[in-house]
Amino acid sequence: MTAEIITIGDEILIGQIVDTNSAWMAQKLNLAGIAVKQITSVSDQADHIIDALSEAEKRAGIILITGGLGPTKDDITKITLSRYFNMGMRRDEETLQHVRTFFERLKRPMLDSNMGQADVPEGCTVIQNKQGTAPCMWFENNGRIIVSMPGVPFEMMYLMEEEIIPRLVSLFKLPHIVHKTILTYGIGESFLAEAIADIENDLPEHIKLAYLPRLGQVRLRLSGSGYEGALLDRQIMEFTQRIAERVKKHVAALEDIALEKAMLNTMEKRGLTLSTAESCTGGYIGHLITQHPGSSAVYKGGGVVYSNELKIKILDVSEQTLERYGAVSEETVTEMAAGALRTFNTDYAVAVSGIAGPDGASPGKPVGTVWIAVANKQQVVARLFTFGNKRTQNIERSAVAALGMILNELGPD
Amino acid sequence: MTAEIITIGDEILIGQIVDTNSAWMAQKLNLAGIAVKQITSVSDQADHIIDALSEAEKRAGIILITGGLGPTKDDITKITLSRYFNMGMRRDEETLQHVRTFFERLKRPMLDSNMGQADVPEGCTVIQNKQGTAPCMWFENNGRIIVSMPGVPFEMMYLMEEEIIPRLVSLFKLPHIVHKTILTYGIGESFLAEAIADIENDLPEHIKLAYLPRLGQVRLRLSGSGYEGALLDRQIMEFTQRIAERVKKHVAALEDIALEKAMLNTMEKRGLTLSTAESCTGGYIGHLITQHPGSSAVYKGGGVVYSNELKIKILDVSEQTLERYGAVSEETVTEMAAGALRTFNTDYAVAVSGIAGPDGASPGKPVGTVWIAVANKQQVVARLFTFGNKRTQNIERSAVAALGMILNELGPD
Repeated sequence: MTAEIITIGDEILIGQIVDTNSAWMAQKLNLAGIAVKQITSVSDQADHIIDALSEAEKRAGIILITGGLGPTKDDITKITLSRYFNMGMRRDEETLQHVRTFFERLKRPMLDSNMGQADVPEGCTVIQNKQGTAPCMWFENNGRIIVSMPGVPFEMMYLMEEEIIPRLVSLFKLPHIVHKTILTYGIGESFLAEAIADIENDLPEHIKLAYLPRLGQVRLRLSGSGYEGALLDRQIMEFTQRIAERVKKHVAALEDIALEKAMLNTMEKRGLTLSTAESCTGGYIGHLITQHPGSSAVYKGGGVVYSNELKIKILDVSEQTLERYGAVSEETVTEMAAGALRTFNTDYAVAVSGIAGPDGASPGKPVGTVWIAVANKQQVVARLFTFGNKRTQNIERSAVAALGMILNELGPD
Repeated sequence: MTAEIITIGDEILIGQIVDTNSAWMAQKLNLAGIAVKQITSVSDQADHIIDALSEAEKRAGIILITGGLGPTKDDITKITLSRYFNMGMRRDEETLQHVRTFFERLKRPMLDSNMGQADVPEGCTVIQNKQGTAPCMWFENNGRIIVSMPGVPFEMMYLMEEEIIPRLVSLFKLPHIVHKTILTYGIGESFLAEAIADIENDLPEHIKLAYLPRLGQVRLRLSGSGYEGALLDRQIMEFTQRIAERVKKHVAALEDIALEKAMLNTMEKRGLTLSTAESCTGGYIGHLITQHPGSSAVYKGGGVVYSNELKIKILDVSEQTLERYGAVSEETVTEMAAGALRTFNTDYAVAVSGIAGPDGASPGKPVGTVWIAVANKQQVVARLFTFGNKRTQNIERSAVAALGMILNELGPD
């Protein structure tokens, strides 16, 4: 089964927003066993929308449309769909009630234009959008499914996950699909492939393995498809365990989560606490960690010690060390991690000191030179990394490397 | 003049990457006076690429294609273009030399497949890609321009800025276009519009004003188009000054830069230093600031004081204050800012303490309650913000509010 995605609205075409919806939708569809043939962004113009729709109908059995459902005049998706399908408009009572309740809850007055949100083409099935006021419309046309959704990301996501994908899966009797992700770190894609080559060879036809690399991490995703759910689950689990066992010391999690979340989970399970001492990463590691609800159970905080003065004052790095070896050195970063452990009174501390660039290079220490240390009560381990010459990337890669070093010190579950 | 963008490659259609290229290109094209009619993502399949191209030719005079130019077999853009235009292939000597030099510099062996990167359709003009080995190809067909570029973002960006856009502008004799951005903060779009309504009314036909709001900031972009460059420059400058003068205390910069960069510039100009004391933002403000090269001239660092223990230890917040008023209170955040100023020894310090959610709410302090304080040697100013219930957004909005408060204390230039 193939699908196409059409986004309607000028914001994308004038470059005001990046179309993140389509990538998200494409991923969810692929995971459900529906391939995406084309993604098209068109403007709020009826003829253009109609052309895009009729072209898409030639190529795919499912067409998902987002955007153009707001209450203002420039949002013309509904009226264009009624024209395309040659249908009149009707006011949907359930939607009207839903919009009313929505406004009452917000204690905001309801305008005529909001009432209009309950108007839909006659022949469509309305799917209630519990996250907003624009209804989701489902059309069937010559065996094809055309769905129109709002473009607001969280409304679209809710509708896709709760309504559209389950309906498509049951309608097209798609096979049972099982995915399992193994999050690895500290090992490159090709080394990983070599290490598990024989296991990969054993995979039956209906189970695929994808390598999804991203900045110092590789996600291994096993995807199986079949009509016997329980058997498939068991097979996927078996291969997951074989792979995880083989590359044990590189496994951060057996689920598709962020690397820092894998670290938080492991530390929380073991009742451990963490602090950070960040120089070149400037708070980015703290930010990654504290994005996650509940991170305070593990993470106590840390220092953003950009200046040498703060390295001395907050982390008790010795002036002599800084003078003799420089801020970006094994000696300094080791003292930073040890200092953080004491000052912030945690079980683990991680320290990063490097040259993110473009300035700051010195002989023997080019831009991209980064020292990272992890301390616990027994020892401090420091490691040198040599990244590239792009500041933003150096910051990101340093943070990922630091997370990897902590996971490494923690050891596998 | 209208353009279309076609991206080629399966990565976007399986949702592995988000298509950020197209938004960037659309923005640059719009700024050059070229409207984008449609953006289409297709897979690496010859027939599909050809269909997309011929459809696009019906709608637009300029077609920009990215992707599918790598050395591997699944990259078929070049051969497909030669088929589409009914051209043979030729080996381009200049490109071959460029690829050779590229590999020599990297000290990597050159494979046959890399030699093949110098093969191009006979009738195209090759534009050398100084950032990589895939050539950029420029075709002219019935008065239409079709350009094929690599999909690697920095290669595409280089080619667009240095080669493609300048050529298009001169070829189509597009009018002189001038843009000027006024970055404002701490005032909503509608209040801004009201404040400058009379100035906006005075704008001549050929100068447009766009409101570009984003999380507590609004960018006002004046765009003028005309054939007399010097006159246009003078007019745009005049309106910029009138608007900036009118909303003076909300202006962060007269250029299109990030809010934190505007703050850094102002502080650097005045020789001021800054530190941070972050609780709920968890290092995000430090991260925003240290993304920018040269930020160390202003930013000395700070504390990520997630736990109360660290608030006491690092920032000298009194235990009594924490007990009596709680961590999220005017009293605590004031002591945090004052403590940061002393501990980190800077001219300014900013402190943030709030409930990012989803946990941590208490009676009278719902999720989204955030206190922010800015201290300098004369005073500490604290303010309460009430954001929503989404953790990530609360962190972002807190950071932007903190930057706004610092700018406010600094006062206009």
